[in-house]
Order: sequence, then C-alpha cells, then structure tokens
Amino acid sequence: MTDAIDPVDLTARLIACPSITPRSAGVFDVLEAALKPLGFEVHRFFAGEAPDGPVENMVATRGSGGPHFAFAGHLDVVPPGEGWSGDPFHPEIRGNLLYGRGAVDMKGGVAAFVAACAAVTDHPGTVSLLITGDEEGPAVHGTRAIMAWMAERNIQPDMILIGEPTSEARLGDVVKIGRRGTVNMWVTVPGVQGHVAYPHRAENPVPKLARLITALEAVHLDDGTEAFQASNLEITALETSSRATNIIPGSATAQLNIRFNNLHRGEELVALVRRIAAEHAPGATVEAKISGEAFLTPPGRLYELVTEAIREETGVEPTLSTSGGTSDGRFLIALCPVVDFGLPNATMHKLDEAAAVEDIAGLARIYARILRNALA
Amino acid sequence: MTDAIDPVDLTARLIACPSITPRSAGVFDVLEAALKPLGFEVHRFFAGEAPDGPVENMVATRGSGGPHFAFAGHLDVVPPGEGWSGDPFHPEIRGNLLYGRGAVDMKGGVAAFVAACAAVTDHPGTVSLLITGDEEGPAVHGTRAIMAWMAERNIQPDMILIGEPTSEARLGDVVKIGRRGTVNMWVTVPGVQGHVAYPHRAENPVPKLARLITALEAVHLDDGTEAFQASNLEITALETSSRATNIIPGSATAQLNIRFNNLHRGEELVALVRRIAAEHAPGATVEAKISGEAFLTPPGRLYELVTEAIREETGVEPTLSTSGGTSDGRFLIALCPVVDFGLPNATMHKLDEAAAVEDIAGLARIYARILRNALA
Repeated sequence: MTDAIDPVDLTARLIACPSITPRSAGVFDVLEAALKPLGFEVHRFFAGEAPDGPVENMVATRGSGGPHFAFAGHLDVVPPGEGWSGDPFHPEIRGNLLYGRGAVDMKGGVAAFVAACAAVTDHPGTVSLLITGDEEGPAVHGTRAIMAWMAERNIQPDMILIGEPTSEARLGDVVKIGRRGTVNMWVTVPGVQGHVAYPHRAENPVPKLARLITALEAVHLDDGTEAFQASNLEITALETSSRATNIIPGSATAQLNIRFNNLHRGEELVALVRRIAAEHAPGATVEAKISGEAFLTPPGRLYELVTEAIREETGVEPTLSTSGGTSDGRFLIALCPVVDFGLPNATMHKLDEAAAVEDIAGLARIYARILRNALA
Repeated sequence: MTDAIDPVDLTARLIACPSITPRSAGVFDVLEAALKPLGFEVHRFFAGEAPDGPVENMVATRGSGGPHFAFAGHLDVVPPGEGWSGDPFHPEIRGNLLYGRGAVDMKGGVAAFVAACAAVTDHPGTVSLLITGDEEGPAVHGTRAIMAWMAERNIQPDMILIGEPTSEARLGDVVKIGRRGTVNMWVTVPGVQGHVAYPHRAENPVPKLARLITALEAVHLDDGTEAFQASNLEITALETSSRATNIIPGSATAQLNIRFNNLHRGEELVALVRRIAAEHAPGATVEAKISGEAFLTPPGRLYELVTEAIREETGVEPTLSTSGGTSDGRFLIALCPVVDFGLPNATMHKLDEAAAVEDIAGLARIYARILRNALA
C-alpha cells in the first residue's frame, strides 16, 4: 500500500513544464518522481534528431508476468497560442476548473494513470505506462519508438488504454474503439499557361479539374459498418499556379482528404483516385500522404472493462465510437486490443484549456477500477 | 517649313527620363521642347492624387478649324524589372536596335508623331497630340482626364490614331481597329467551414463550385463576327477560404475573365454569370469589374488613310485586327473613329526592350503620310 496521489496536483505539476513538442522541459522528471515511490521501474530514452527531435519517451513497468495491462499517452502539448486569460504554463484552479495547456490533452490523463496505479498496488501481472513526447508532432519518434523499444525486449501488453480526451458532454460518455484512416491527396491537372487574350495559345486546366472534382464527388465508397460511419471524401483546397486576372493558369490543383473506415486501405484509395483522374483529366498527377490506416478493436474483454468501470463510477452508459481524428492507437493496435478513453475534450488545443477538478479525480477512479479488474 | 526631327534621337531623349507610371520624370519637358519650335500650343496639366497620381498629361495643338486629326499616346512606362543587359533608362543603339524601357511602348511612337508633325507643316485644319502619363497604370487619370479637359473646351477631333505598338512580324503588318471588351468576375460559393472528420457539421462549397464552372464552360457566347473573334470565358484562378488538409473550407472562389466582342456589353455578361451561378450554386455571390467595353471603328476614311500609308511606305498589306489586350481606344472611341498602329511589339514590357532604328524612322514616314492625307 502506497500513499494516495492527488491527480489534480500532479496534473498541475506536469502543466508547469512547458513541454511543447518535441521539448520535454522537465516533464518526465516530474512523472518519474511520482512513479518511483509506487514501485515502478522507469526507463527513459530519446529518439530522433532535430528538428522533430530528440523526443523523450518513457516506459515504466511494475510487476511481472501476465496479464499485462498498459496505459498509453503523451506529455507533449500543442503551442498555447496568444490570448490566454492567464499564463498557460502556470496552472491555476478557478472555480472548479484547472487551467493550463495540456490540462485536458493529456497531462490530466497521465496524472490519472499515476493516481490509479497508486490506488491499485496489490495486483498480479504487470502494469505499464507507455508515455511519449511526440504525439502532437509528427508522431514519428514517440509511440513508434516505444514499440521498437518494447519489441527488442519482448514486452507485449495484453490490453492498452490510451488516455486521450474522448469524452464529450460529460466524463464517460464516449469511448473510442477505433478510428477511421486518413489520407491526403493533391491532384494536379496540367495545362498550358498563356494570356487570356490569346486562349488558342494556352490550355486552361480548370475545366478539366472541375469535371474531375464532380467525378470524385460522385464516388460512393461505402455505407459505413456497424462500428464505423461511411467513408468520406472532401476537397479541402483549390489552387491555381497563377492568380493574375489576365493569365490562364498553367496548372490547377485540388487538395483532398479521405477519412475511411476499415473496409478500405489507404493505398487502394490512392489507386482509385489515380484511376478517376486518369479517366477525367488525362495527364493529371496525384501526390498522396497516408496519415493512418483505419483500425478497430473488436468487441471483447477491454470493451467490458472500460464500459463497466465508467458505468459504476459515473452512471453514464458510454457510446463506443470510431469518429473524430486519429490517435496513436493506429500504431498500438498492432500489439493488442486498444481503446481511447479520457477527459471531456471541449477545450483541447484551445485557448484557456481547462479540466474540471472533479473530472480528473473521477477519471483516476475509473482508471483504477479498470486496472484492478483487468489484472484480477 | 521647320527643321526635320530625328525620331530615333528624340526617342532616346524620352527614354532617358525614367517615367514609370505615374512619375513623369521630366519626359514632358523633352516633348514640349520638341513641339514648341514646330508651332504647337502646348497645354500641360496634372490629374489625380497619390498613390495613382498626380499624373502629368499634355494636349498640344497646331492650326485651327477642321479637319482635326489627333495622335494619341502615352509617355509612362512599366517598371524595367531586373536583368537588363544595360541600363534601361540609358538609351543605347547596338546593331540596328535602340534599347531602353519604352523604346517600343511607346516613346518611339510619340517621337514618330513629332517627326511626322515636323515633316508636314503646311496643312489646313488642326493636328493635335494627346499624350498621357497614365496608360500603363490604372488609366484613370490619363486619357479620361484629357477627354474631360477637351470637353470643357469643346475640342473634338475627327479622327484619332493611337501609336501603340501593334505590328507583329514587321512594321505595318497589323493595325488594330477595335478591341474586345474585358470583364473580370469573382464567383464565390459559400459553405460551412468545419473539420473534415465531422462532415455532417460542415458544408463543402467546392463540389458546387465545380459544377458551376462546368456550367460556365458550357456557355456559348457567340461565333465571332467579321471583325471580331468569338467571345471567350476563362477561369483564371481558384481559391478556397482555407488550405489546411483537415478543414472543409468555408467558401470557394473562381476568378474568371471574359474577353468579349461588340455583340455583348459587360453588364449583360455579368448578369448572365449571376443567373448561371444562381441556378447551379444558389447563394453564390458574383463580384465584377468591367475593364472596358468592346469597341470597333467601322470601315471608313481612317482605315483607308492608315492602310494606304502603310502600303505605300512599306509595301505591306496590313491586317485589320481586334485581337489582343485593350487600349485607351476604349475611351477615345466615344469621340470619333480611332485606330491603333505602331511599332513591332515583340519586346514590349520585356527585359531589353528595343526598337529597330529603321522601324522608328519608317513609322515617322507612315505617320507623316497619314497626317498629310488626313488634312489634305
């Protein structure tokens, strides 16, 4: 039995370190100091080089053998931006809210991990914390580096709970059981630039691009599945190689994004767009960047552990969702079942980011219940 | 009888004044000094205020009563840009070319006006030079100010020859008897901005804009006329209100230009685009700027004077054209028949702008022949 940890106090101490990706700014020292007395073996290492690194990462483990339950998350934060009512790295409780960059996303979640581990000490098996310093950045030297580090040591969790802020109207209402994949593409239709007064010497790429966009919009990817909404294509920007009023542009580009469910793979969608482009705008080029494939944790024990704990601590029946932006679950799903569950996310990435004190405490209790039952 | 004027030498002295719109840089002093000994009454005045002005303009007249023949042109030049082989405002003859900004567009033409007036002195009626300092700029305080100045004094030419560089392969091959009109429009389709992960909370304006562009492209304005090529619509730029890969933009805009012949008026074309926009993208807004209406000098005495003089001086049979960019003829046509005829235009607005010495001299002879016959 160890001393209880106040997760609100710990959140505040984590916020006080301005750990804007990829800087760690002492935040892992604070975390290590909290974990060591709880019996954790703490491994810290750096990955990557400037400008995206070096990134500090931590794997902390307690216990041995199975089952192995892991909490995963990050201690880096997005830049605060201008216009806060206070200092974003000077945590402050006003009313019932703890203000500071990272309060919600996701230093509050990491503090709740630690408080849960302080509350549940006499468990069989292993509990670990997989904490990165590169989730808000390119996400190249964070979770992927931790997975490589664990692979070298044959460490393999059986279940992972990511503490990203998934709740919406109130704590516990939304659990993310997967995410759609996302791919960005840039479709460029070439033309021949020229003066508008001499159109016969030029070839305008815009009408071709317009027809191509209409063809792309007509594509029906799927109707969704039980777990996922329908895959969706959106044109996110248009651009021409010139913007003068008297020039026919030499090329026209549409930037598009597809959020896709697990009926698709990114590469297949890129190939589909290439085929449509070749048909409607011969000569068009398609650049693509797949940010993540769709993933889904199938129904099972982890679902039950999380929903039961939420129900018992809060009375809320959580929605199991796959909507919204992606998470590091897209990497971790390669290891074992993964769900994301954490604080209400209304203020994440915004000015005056703040978490309700009672939500941080409530989240710590839910995590403790999940941990206790997972390792029972 | 006055002394002959060397138009190449006068062109060089005009080039030496760096009269980038709206600066006159002494160029009107050079012109006045050349005109006074030829018996011209010289009126100089300024129009407009910073930043587009003040602009210096000149009306110089000789003789009285009808017929009244006017040469029109400008002494302002476009900025030289970087990369000339010599100083753009230090005129220099190399080979048979006179180099300098404005050699072609159109200090060479103005010098040829003066040389023609020096060669033809014993004429009945009136000859005038209408010379502005704002043709390359917004063209607000140049020809329009001169027209206002003349209207106040009841001065009304019977024919106007604009000395813009209209020749293409060789001196005399192209005379402009009118120009198409031009109108720019900005068609903006509104949407509702939102995150691509939540398309149901947003409304993407791009597909609507794409369909609208396809509808605009399908419009057949006309088949052209004997004097004019077909009117033509080109999309000159595309833009979205955001360019982030994860944002559905709040609006999408197409910039378009219509070059139109005298079967149309600018306002009718704006109304047409508004109707098409309302049909295919309800809620779309259309901003419009009519730069000039189409104009045409009908066949008549001025055609004959110019083509005969070219034929007799050069042996070339000129093409009577309405193609290319607009000119101040769009304003002057309100007064009387107008044609544009001047030097070969291959280097206008370019680096190392240069006019052939023999073309400047040949142009002065053609202008003298036109003037003599016009006032005979």
